[in-house]
Amino acid sequence: MPLSDRHPGLWKMLMVAMCVALAGCLQAQELHGHVSIVLLGATGDLAKKYLWQGLFQLYLDEEGKGHTFSFHGAALTAPRQGQELMAKALESLSCPEDTAPSHCAALKDQFLRLSQYRQLKTAEDYQTLSKDIEAQVAREGLREAGRIFYFSVPPFAYADIARNINASCRPGPGAWLRVVLEKPFGHDHLSAQQLATELGSFFQEEEMYRVDHYLGKQAVAQILPFRDQNRKALDGLWNRHHVERVEIIMKETVDAEGRTSFYEEYGVIRDILQNHLTEILTLVAMELPHNVSSSAAVLQHKLQAFRALRGLHKGSAVVGQYQAYSAQVRGELQKPESFHSLTPTFAGVLVHVDNLRWEGVPFLLMSGKALDERVGYVRVLFKNKAFCVHREGHWAPEQSQCLPRQIIFHIGHGELGHPAILVSRNLFRPTLPAQGWTEVQERPGLRVFGRPLSDFYAYSPVREREAYSILLSHIFHCRKESFITTENLLASWVFWTPLLDSLAHEAPRLYPGGAETGHLLDLEFNGGHLSFSQQQPEQLVPGPGLTMKPSDFQVLGTRYRESPLISAWPEELISKLASDIEATAVQAVRRFGKFHLALSGGSSPIALFQQLATGHYGFPWAHTHLWLVDERCVPLSDPDSNFQGLQAHLLQHIRVPYYNIHPMPVHLRQRLCAEEDQGAQTYAGEIMALVANSSFDLVLLGMGTDGHTASLFPQSPTGLDGEQLVVLTQSPLRPYQRMSLSLPLINRAKKVAVLVMGRTKREITMLVSRVGREPKKWPISGVLPSSGQLVWYMDYEAFLG
Amino acid sequence: MPLSDRHPGLWKMLMVAMCVALAGCLQAQELHGHVSIVLLGATGDLAKKYLWQGLFQLYLDEEGKGHTFSFHGAALTAPRQGQELMAKALESLSCPEDTAPSHCAALKDQFLRLSQYRQLKTAEDYQTLSKDIEAQVAREGLREAGRIFYFSVPPFAYADIARNINASCRPGPGAWLRVVLEKPFGHDHLSAQQLATELGSFFQEEEMYRVDHYLGKQAVAQILPFRDQNRKALDGLWNRHHVERVEIIMKETVDAEGRTSFYEEYGVIRDILQNHLTEILTLVAMELPHNVSSSAAVLQHKLQAFRALRGLHKGSAVVGQYQAYSAQVRGELQKPESFHSLTPTFAGVLVHVDNLRWEGVPFLLMSGKALDERVGYVRVLFKNKAFCVHREGHWAPEQSQCLPRQIIFHIGHGELGHPAILVSRNLFRPTLPAQGWTEVQERPGLRVFGRPLSDFYAYSPVREREAYSILLSHIFHCRKESFITTENLLASWVFWTPLLDSLAHEAPRLYPGGAETGHLLDLEFNGGHLSFSQQQPEQLVPGPGLTMKPSDFQVLGTRYRESPLISAWPEELISKLASDIEATAVQAVRRFGKFHLALSGGSSPIALFQQLATGHYGFPWAHTHLWLVDERCVPLSDPDSNFQGLQAHLLQHIRVPYYNIHPMPVHLRQRLCAEEDQGAQTYAGEIMALVANSSFDLVLLGMGTDGHTASLFPQSPTGLDGEQLVVLTQSPLRPYQRMSLSLPLINRAKKVAVLVMGRTKREITMLVSRVGREPKKWPISGVLPSSGQLVWYMDYEAFLG
Repeated sequence: MPLSDRHPGLWKMLMVAMCVALAGCLQAQELHGHVSIVLLGATGDLAKKYLWQGLFQLYLDEEGKGHTFSFHGAALTAPRQGQELMAKALESLSCPEDTAPSHCAALKDQFLRLSQYRQLKTAEDYQTLSKDIEAQVAREGLREAGRIFYFSVPPFAYADIARNINASCRPGPGAWLRVVLEKPFGHDHLSAQQLATELGSFFQEEEMYRVDHYLGKQAVAQILPFRDQNRKALDGLWNRHHVERVEIIMKETVDAEGRTSFYEEYGVIRDILQNHLTEILTLVAMELPHNVSSSAAVLQHKLQAFRALRGLHKGSAVVGQYQAYSAQVRGELQKPESFHSLTPTFAGVLVHVDNLRWEGVPFLLMSGKALDERVGYVRVLFKNKAFCVHREGHWAPEQSQCLPRQIIFHIGHGELGHPAILVSRNLFRPTLPAQGWTEVQERPGLRVFGRPLSDFYAYSPVREREAYSILLSHIFHCRKESFITTENLLASWVFWTPLLDSLAHEAPRLYPGGAETGHLLDLEFNGGHLSFSQQQPEQLVPGPGLTMKPSDFQVLGTRYRESPLISAWPEELISKLASDIEATAVQAVRRFGKFHLALSGGSSPIALFQQLATGHYGFPWAHTHLWLVDERCVPLSDPDSNFQGLQAHLLQHIRVPYYNIHPMPVHLRQRLCAEEDQGAQTYAGEIMALVANSSFDLVLLGMGTDGHTASLFPQSPTGLDGEQLVVLTQSPLRPYQRMSLSLPLINRAKKVAVLVMGRTKREITMLVSRVGREPKKWPISGVLPSSGQLVWYMDYEAFLG
Repeated sequence: MPLSDRHPGLWKMLMVAMCVALAGCLQAQELHGHVSIVLLGATGDLAKKYLWQGLFQLYLDEEGKGHTFSFHGAALTAPRQGQELMAKALESLSCPEDTAPSHCAALKDQFLRLSQYRQLKTAEDYQTLSKDIEAQVAREGLREAGRIFYFSVPPFAYADIARNINASCRPGPGAWLRVVLEKPFGHDHLSAQQLATELGSFFQEEEMYRVDHYLGKQAVAQILPFRDQNRKALDGLWNRHHVERVEIIMKETVDAEGRTSFYEEYGVIRDILQNHLTEILTLVAMELPHNVSSSAAVLQHKLQAFRALRGLHKGSAVVGQYQAYSAQVRGELQKPESFHSLTPTFAGVLVHVDNLRWEGVPFLLMSGKALDERVGYVRVLFKNKAFCVHREGHWAPEQSQCLPRQIIFHIGHGELGHPAILVSRNLFRPTLPAQGWTEVQERPGLRVFGRPLSDFYAYSPVREREAYSILLSHIFHCRKESFITTENLLASWVFWTPLLDSLAHEAPRLYPGGAETGHLLDLEFNGGHLSFSQQQPEQLVPGPGLTMKPSDFQVLGTRYRESPLISAWPEELISKLASDIEATAVQAVRRFGKFHLALSGGSSPIALFQQLATGHYGFPWAHTHLWLVDERCVPLSDPDSNFQGLQAHLLQHIRVPYYNIHPMPVHLRQRLCAEEDQGAQTYAGEIMALVANSSFDLVLLGMGTDGHTASLFPQSPTGLDGEQLVVLTQSPLRPYQRMSLSLPLINRAKKVAVLVMGRTKREITMLVSRVGREPKKWPISGVLPSSGQLVWYMDYEAFLG
């Protein structure tokens, strides 16, 4: 189910909130004046490595264009010591490549004069800061344009800082406030929501800039502009008819050593997939707005892409962990020898985008530590729909449609070693911004993505820029589309949290790491499921608590209530039942030209529907009529409707003609199962008209823990005997009203199969095995086709307990 | 539409005929006795090249196993001269490789003593032959087992020979007759049927063995046994979920020089595709019978495969002709300089098998003369559903699921140079008959199908055998599945004839031939269509009768009957209409949460449906309700039903929930449009219940040449005014009874689009442009939404004539 269907209210709310948040940003930007930038955590790693350099770059880019600047490095450290640390951090600032050394020194000097350290610890410190800024602005006769607070601090410090800024550091009217936040933004949907609510009590949505630094990486930042500038060529290609798959990959060679205290809490999915790779996914998958430079339009389309994501389940992902990880955790976190971590350091996740553009196209997100190479990329592989008459040796890369066709946004590292955009020459010659991007020089012998580099039109940035420097510029220019809005963040957690929950107790596959990993982590996707290509390697020393495996048993054939019983593990049972149904269908169609099948709702048949939909090519669907055994009195479109299950798991995958589908008329004249609308009679009439003798070829039933079957419950006044073929009944559980085939009608069938699965059915199974024919007490006991065949299908849990 | 749907009667008949034909063959074979083999055309090319050698081989294989033999070479030539020619043909007989020369001479000598020439020209000649055989059998005290007549003669001679054999050469009771026929078996469905009827008047189906010598080629003959012996591995793979495509290819380097008199009449499709490649196709696609050595089962499953073939249309194929061909024809057939042949020497045809196993899998059949290499093969390419985490350089062919996975039946020639079966090592290790097949020795440097030979498990026959020798053995052993039954032959012509007809006046693309052809013939398939990858090269000297091309015009916007008119070439018009509908839909869903669309039937909307199905990813189908504007009073499943067109061209390709689809209830209580069933009232009630104000968001109408619209015809007593929303009407054309939205209901719509296409509409278009509002005369003139918008969409032919 797409996310939007599960949270319709939330989505509407988010869309409204977003539009409001973006108003007014650009107008404010145009008023020049003084800008104060406060870097919180000014002496931390991130600041030293990227942020100061980014601020210096911002200063170089913007200085003299109307704004004036001051830079405040802030931390908890006392002034003198902090000042020293900051000075050290600033020593390594570097100028753009083409700057003369003397000029560079002058520029750095200017920047240093505008930068000062200050301790921000108490509420008073913040008040002082604000006053100092006001005083400076007044003193220099400037207008205050705005203030940027960059939170380069651990998340636990957020609330306190936010409160202080909101309380005492807001600029006066007409000037803007922007706060920049660094991940992690929560740990799951709930914690992210709490954090967002807290921040929301201090700041407006438009004031917050949540950084995902991948959005500042040059190849990533170019995805939308590339799609925009090559609209014409991509228009017909960027869809399920042409795209075979999309790979969004981030491989690392390093492991988590030294960072396990963080990593143990997060793992690779929260660290990389939930944020970086998901952001990239939306950039690739979203509908392209008419105007890609409109932040509002981009953000809205991005949210719509989230809405279309199919919910993840356990089968959507595989996880791994490099072998040394648990020992590293034990060492760093003082855990006992018996401790084994379940934290994944590798994950592959198969994502589907359930809209017409992308339906059926696998999006593979993969990231891991301790792998054989460091590389990040997005690869869009196109389907090969060509046949080249000429021998392969003569294929020319630019002409041959038989060579692979792909578009790659190469984020960095790998054999190529730098950001790049690659387009197979047999696709089209792409347009890239002439100023920023240049063609990559051919490097003979270099193969990328299975082909020589010369097979591609390959472009790389004229100058490599750090993501943070790009993002600081975007913050300054109010380009909100490069940041994670609250809505965006929560949508992402709504998407990821169920998977994280379902994997919480899953043991990851261990891998040696590096090149030795070999094919151990290779993945395969098949119908929505992702799995490792290789079977789990044999466990040489089996642990205690050895349990029997499905393969230890065969399908058992015996008798139950004097009718044939087929018993097996669930998978074999479903597979046997599906084959039996197909055989019955083929025989019926051969003899009578059609097959009338009446199906029950509920959860057990879902696996059967899936099996029939994907595994039975010979099934004569075109000649099959599908009837319902029973229905809940809800609209057919209600998720509770039995028909819905049939539609989602079977009808969508096969081709049954519309007029061979016979949902129960529980919703006539916009009313649910009103006696006077005669729905039951109508259905009975339809059956009499189409089904010879009103004798279905096969009726599939279930059995409830109270011994009910179809929607015939114990003590039901209707349906257990009498002339009526279809009846309205009452269920003890919601929704109370039901429509059901009657027992006499069921017993006219040529074949009745009863499917019973799961441990909860054990008691009733035992009970019913011993009782006589007492349909008033146990309706199931009244099932006995008068001239047809009854077969019981029970899994071992239901039958053996 | 699958073939079987179009010829249901024929199919039933064929299936019955086949079962009868196969009875009794094997029992007869077990009675030993004397076998006479008469080779008609004993001194012809085929006899000299293959047939005598095949007969010699048959003799060597079967001699001493209970049967005795005599061989009669026959022709029209007078005895002495014929005898000499035949002796010459027999001189070059060769023994199996491992035969000692002296032994070989002895064997040949034996064979020659059993062989004699005889002139078969007159009815008496045949009578004499029969008497001679009887006399010989009597003289030698043998029982006659049967007679084989091999027709190695031109088809025009068939009837005469057949009549004579039937009249005077049938063996006595208890002995069998087999006649072996060589292609061509007709030129199209009609001629094939005539020929079959004629032969059928002389021979029983079980007596006829039609040869397609490809069925005797070792790799082809192994397809079914291979599928059978590797059932377990192939079971899950041999279907649309795993197979990406199937290529069935026969490339030749030779051209048609010297054979143009034959070739001009047949062309490559009749020469290669209709027979050889189609036979291979059925072997690959058919459901595998339980027992592959049962001729009856194989033939029946093969026929079923034909039933599932989707009908071919012009867009299914591309044709080419090597440049020298026309000159060769002019030379050989004394044609004038102005003569240009349209006969294709190259063809690619895209075939789809419309069953659940193969739905959507392209089967490409391709053959051509004067190409760059000589090679024949069937290649089954599997989908790549793997992602290999490891860098490509480290992929191991047996483990990596990321390397191509393919199974190839290599018929012969090519780089490999011999018959072979190749299975990618990452698939499975195949089982092949240990006696007949052996592993191919590695040949370093040799690449086949894009990979080194070492990537495959590769097997080739221990001994290469000529197809004719294999087939002669199969004739002797009554293995009918290696031959073309009448049913099979006609099914193939039913499949091919419409395409041949539609291509009859198509100019093939000219290609230089050999390596120079380059990428000129490369093919691309897309949604059932096959096209050349490269645009038609510019015609440098345009011929006379230059016509305007679609691109010479833009979409015209003007007015018609005081409403907006959009006019364009058909493709642009449909594309504009589809976009307009989508825009209306998106807007309606945004504002009201749903979109109510009422669609007309007929042929013009089909292109629109296809455009909407494939080109509009943003269309909010999940929130769209589909209604019918009108319907014919036929069951919904009738091909004439408007709903059928909607289902086939739109519903099957999109995901509209079942309960958003609203077919007209023309078939209630198993009656068609009975007044008392109140179908019209029911539909009106449904509209009132679901469509706010009974005001559709968009109604799509057409216009008939009599000015009718929807199913409202001139002078209709109902529907043109009054209160009724839905009415029963009468059409002047079959089927007479209709159901239709009424004019007042149509005019309540928010938007009405009228689509008018084709030259036949020109007159009514002109007429209606001039008349006032006179719905009694011209119902279309009554269309004017009271508060909605009317837009006319007309192609240039309808509008400008």
